[in-house]
Amino acid sequence: MGCRVTFLPHKVSVEVPPGTPILQAALEARVHINASCGGEGLCGKCRVLVESGPVEGGGSASLSAEEVGRGFRLACQAAVAGDCRVRVPVESALDAGVLARRLPPRRTARMQRFDFEELKEKGLFLAPVEKIFLEIPPPTAQDNRPDLSRLIGHLTQRHGEHRLEVDLPVIRKLPAVLREAGFRVTATLVRPVREDGRTRLIQVQPGDTSRRLYAVAVDIGTTTVCGELIDLADGRTLAEHADFNAQISYGEDVITRIVYAEKPGGLERMQEVVVGTLNAVLKKLLRRAGVDPEDIATIALAGNTTMTQLLLRVDPRPLRRAPYVPAASIYPPFKARELGLKLGEHVTALVYPCVSSYVGGDIVAGVMGSGLYRSEALTLFLDVGTNAEIVIGNRDWLVCAACSAGPAFEGGGIRFGMRAARGAIEEFAIDPATLEPMIVTIGRVRPKGICGSGLISAAAALFETGVIDSRGRFDPALRSPRIREAEGCREYVLAWREQTQIDRDITLSEIDLENLIRAKGAIYSGCMTLLTEVGLRIEDIERIILAGGFGSYIDLEKAMTIGLLPEIDPDRVTYLGNGSLLGAKMASLTNRVRRDVVAVVRRMTNFELSETASYMDNYIAALFLPHTDIERFPRLKARLAERRGAARRAP
Amino acid sequence: MGCRVTFLPHKVSVEVPPGTPILQAALEARVHINASCGGEGLCGKCRVLVESGPVEGGGSASLSAEEVGRGFRLACQAAVAGDCRVRVPVESALDAGVLARRLPPRRTARMQRFDFEELKEKGLFLAPVEKIFLEIPPPTAQDNRPDLSRLIGHLTQRHGEHRLEVDLPVIRKLPAVLREAGFRVTATLVRPVREDGRTRLIQVQPGDTSRRLYAVAVDIGTTTVCGELIDLADGRTLAEHADFNAQISYGEDVITRIVYAEKPGGLERMQEVVVGTLNAVLKKLLRRAGVDPEDIATIALAGNTTMTQLLLRVDPRPLRRAPYVPAASIYPPFKARELGLKLGEHVTALVYPCVSSYVGGDIVAGVMGSGLYRSEALTLFLDVGTNAEIVIGNRDWLVCAACSAGPAFEGGGIRFGMRAARGAIEEFAIDPATLEPMIVTIGRVRPKGICGSGLISAAAALFETGVIDSRGRFDPALRSPRIREAEGCREYVLAWREQTQIDRDITLSEIDLENLIRAKGAIYSGCMTLLTEVGLRIEDIERIILAGGFGSYIDLEKAMTIGLLPEIDPDRVTYLGNGSLLGAKMASLTNRVRRDVVAVVRRMTNFELSETASYMDNYIAALFLPHTDIERFPRLKARLAERRGAARRAP
Repeated sequence: MGCRVTFLPHKVSVEVPPGTPILQAALEARVHINASCGGEGLCGKCRVLVESGPVEGGGSASLSAEEVGRGFRLACQAAVAGDCRVRVPVESALDAGVLARRLPPRRTARMQRFDFEELKEKGLFLAPVEKIFLEIPPPTAQDNRPDLSRLIGHLTQRHGEHRLEVDLPVIRKLPAVLREAGFRVTATLVRPVREDGRTRLIQVQPGDTSRRLYAVAVDIGTTTVCGELIDLADGRTLAEHADFNAQISYGEDVITRIVYAEKPGGLERMQEVVVGTLNAVLKKLLRRAGVDPEDIATIALAGNTTMTQLLLRVDPRPLRRAPYVPAASIYPPFKARELGLKLGEHVTALVYPCVSSYVGGDIVAGVMGSGLYRSEALTLFLDVGTNAEIVIGNRDWLVCAACSAGPAFEGGGIRFGMRAARGAIEEFAIDPATLEPMIVTIGRVRPKGICGSGLISAAAALFETGVIDSRGRFDPALRSPRIREAEGCREYVLAWREQTQIDRDITLSEIDLENLIRAKGAIYSGCMTLLTEVGLRIEDIERIILAGGFGSYIDLEKAMTIGLLPEIDPDRVTYLGNGSLLGAKMASLTNRVRRDVVAVVRRMTNFELSETASYMDNYIAALFLPHTDIERFPRLKARLAERRGAARRAP
Repeated sequence: MGCRVTFLPHKVSVEVPPGTPILQAALEARVHINASCGGEGLCGKCRVLVESGPVEGGGSASLSAEEVGRGFRLACQAAVAGDCRVRVPVESALDAGVLARRLPPRRTARMQRFDFEELKEKGLFLAPVEKIFLEIPPPTAQDNRPDLSRLIGHLTQRHGEHRLEVDLPVIRKLPAVLREAGFRVTATLVRPVREDGRTRLIQVQPGDTSRRLYAVAVDIGTTTVCGELIDLADGRTLAEHADFNAQISYGEDVITRIVYAEKPGGLERMQEVVVGTLNAVLKKLLRRAGVDPEDIATIALAGNTTMTQLLLRVDPRPLRRAPYVPAASIYPPFKARELGLKLGEHVTALVYPCVSSYVGGDIVAGVMGSGLYRSEALTLFLDVGTNAEIVIGNRDWLVCAACSAGPAFEGGGIRFGMRAARGAIEEFAIDPATLEPMIVTIGRVRPKGICGSGLISAAAALFETGVIDSRGRFDPALRSPRIREAEGCREYVLAWREQTQIDRDITLSEIDLENLIRAKGAIYSGCMTLLTEVGLRIEDIERIILAGGFGSYIDLEKAMTIGLLPEIDPDRVTYLGNGSLLGAKMASLTNRVRRDVVAVVRRMTNFELSETASYMDNYIAALFLPHTDIERFPRLKARLAERRGAARRAP
């Protein structure tokens, strides 16, 4: 049950889970509370008066006992424990009035859930691996067929298995396993992906292990490697673990890694290093789930084109040179051990196919995992990172493209930019009267910098309150110690030195904003160009899927405010989370996905935006907040008009 | 052109190639010449008088210049150089008369020849591997498909290749190979064995290498590993090489090797050791043929069940324990590199399937290589070694069995027994009057011992001349320094100490003869039992195929004389030579054999002779020279009767 928090004097209510800090509740209610230490309780600016209802904590040293007795708390420290009324000291009627006028719009989308039962109901579940317990009559002098013939004969007669292929390692151990177990063994069968394929016997274990059948799914990100250990009986995830891709020590982005791989022995090194990370993740998954590695039957992996080629030790040179050619689209399955993965020698690994140098297996996995390829609805799929990958289509057709957004969303090219880590400013609001900020950091500690979602949040707030204009320039008429000029460029002080962890003021400059606008412009224009190429308009899009870790943190309203995303009903937006991992999971659960993906990849028409004439025009038009053409953002246009009206009415 | 040699006083002629020693010509003409130093020219006993015609050499130190001037020569040293007349000093009319009476019967069979053109004519040639030279348009900004898609697209459009599978190592190198070679490359395609299979792209080489396509075929014998390097374009053997199986240091027979393999690390060691031998053979083959290892496309191997399991590192324990169960019949193809073979990583190895613990891939290879499985004629296939393997059947049905002949044919259990190596007595004749021997050794050097063919030759000669009876006992009435009693057992001196390399008399004892009779009895009774089991008699057999190195040295007449082989017209007997190697060669040349072998193995019904009631009766009946029932050997019976008549007529 949620707790209803009513903010006064705004008279705005919001329902939040118990334990939510009041500051967080205020953010969701769009109520401004000054807060500039990120939530650590140091600045003491976020004091509020709890007029009624239970609240826990928040009686900081910066409040006197008398103040605490009267009901004052620090909003960043005090957690809601039931329905309550909280009065915020407002410094102007304008402030209280404007923010309170409208109910908060939906800022987050529905998270796509994985549903094994649904998979089964839709007929999408074709088990890729099965185990069968066998009680085989032992050989006699009269019937001394070879062990394998006996086993296969039994599988044929008792279990209707035909046309079996057998791996050599199975035969190697077969005599010992059969005899140790008194000819009571469990056979692991891999079902063919293609209809004309054959079932493969990959493992024979002593005794009955038929209830222990697991798979591993892995997303190999440029930055992070994420794995899941899955029970193939019911699709449950028994363990999850993520770790940094150790290739990071050789370069943060794919280009520097390709450059490294071009050195003598470099490719081998890149492969070893990522396999090292994979093995560390596997070890954790196995320990957490308490699963015997011999019971892992299959592993599915997904990564971008560079990660895939480096993992498979495939020459990556042409990936970074025009005309940007990947080595292959579809890779054959291979033995996990061949790559150095510490799994049983029976385990076959499957890697998601790539479409082009910049639309890789991670995106294909997202298309498969999200079900986009089966959907009737015309969908825009977007994975935002240093590169943004865009897929548009439905079950009948698919087009895709990648555009280089630059590293702004990952903190690159932004003076105080950083990755989404502890101490990064992730949410921002501003009091339009005082220009004082309300910031929340990851981990609720003093800020160290600002991450992608913080940047979007800040740019949107500064733009919507008129602090910056559509070109990202600060209003020269505004007077505030927060706005200043440094090195010939205006900037806003997000946090004063005393309240940071870095002993410097954390600022956001016009140059930072320019970089952000370029990044969002690249993505928006990529979407628009791709739409134009297939003769569609944004209105035709019925659904947006946001993939990637960053995608799932995007505040929809703010992303639309700055023109990163086209304006669309938030109900039509879905967060996919790690689509690459989800796709890998689906592939380890069902052969339907393994089979369908071949056709999907063949169907995905890749557009090279750099080769598409309209891209540059679209890009230049998108280098504004939200866009040169405000008509494309009618809801924002209305909000801006309303605010200007309110400002004019204010005393 | 042959040289006609006429022996006097016998008036027997024989045609031999120029350069044949007179002793050899005499053996073929069944003319006895005393010779006991094996052909080294030391004993001087084989002196003959060349009455006319050209002869080279043979004027040894043991002849005076005057003797040489008169035309005396040593028969073992003098080589025929044209038609000639040679007088042999005979010591009795009996001797000269008896041997001269009949024309020599055919003692050797036709050697089966491998004929690539015949293979093609019969539609048996389905190339398992092909190379295609490709000139692929390079990628452009407008067409930047992945390299592999481009390559496969080209193969599909220009060469009608469909449903291709690709090996990961091909993809690994593809970007570099394509670009180094300006997109002019040669693709190696492996054709599917099964009709529902797919063609596999296993290699892409820069430039046009389409005329360089080779295969290797190997027979892995317990003693010897034999290899051939074959040009797949025309089936020609470009190089051959054989070497001892280095596993020999761990035991001479399969049982001791299995025992070794049961020790910790023993199986791995056995595998490494035989792979070491294989690599040495491969190296020699490649060097001799002047072939680049990258141009070897495939390797086919055949060996007995134990050799096969040790090579593949498959647990061999149950092979030597009742009920004698092999791990598998059919093995999947595998990468040659996986086993440690020093071949390109694209090379797939194929191992011949086994039928049972004692009817292995070498026998199946012989059945395939000889064409027995396609033949209408009811055939008895026999591979004689320590174990004798017997196959009976034709294209409609096949039965097989193995029997333990014991090591007599390889020199085991025979006091002066040895393998067929330099210094082994391989041919033997006896003067029925003087009981003096005529021996020929391998390498024409002083004798060191006696090998399998020598044993058969000796036993047949001693029996046919009445020196031993049908139980292998020496006629107690005979008086000769050559026949004596030692340690309660009578023996014949094959060579006196002075004429041997071992400083001892080389003898053949009744115990040796008993062991030989047991060995031949096991084989003969194995054939009879198997025939009985399928309701046939020996008269129904239309053809005999003798396989194995030893098989090809068997003197048919003598083998029939001792009852090792049933009496059959020598024209119906074929020597196959190394059937295992021939089968391996066929498998590397044509997919027809690779496909057919699966059905053949399923069709080969194995009989365990030890489980067959009639085997022991047949065995006991066969423990005589030639057999308890002489009626089964009518030609021998006639010869014996004739000889006895002649003996009675002699003065």
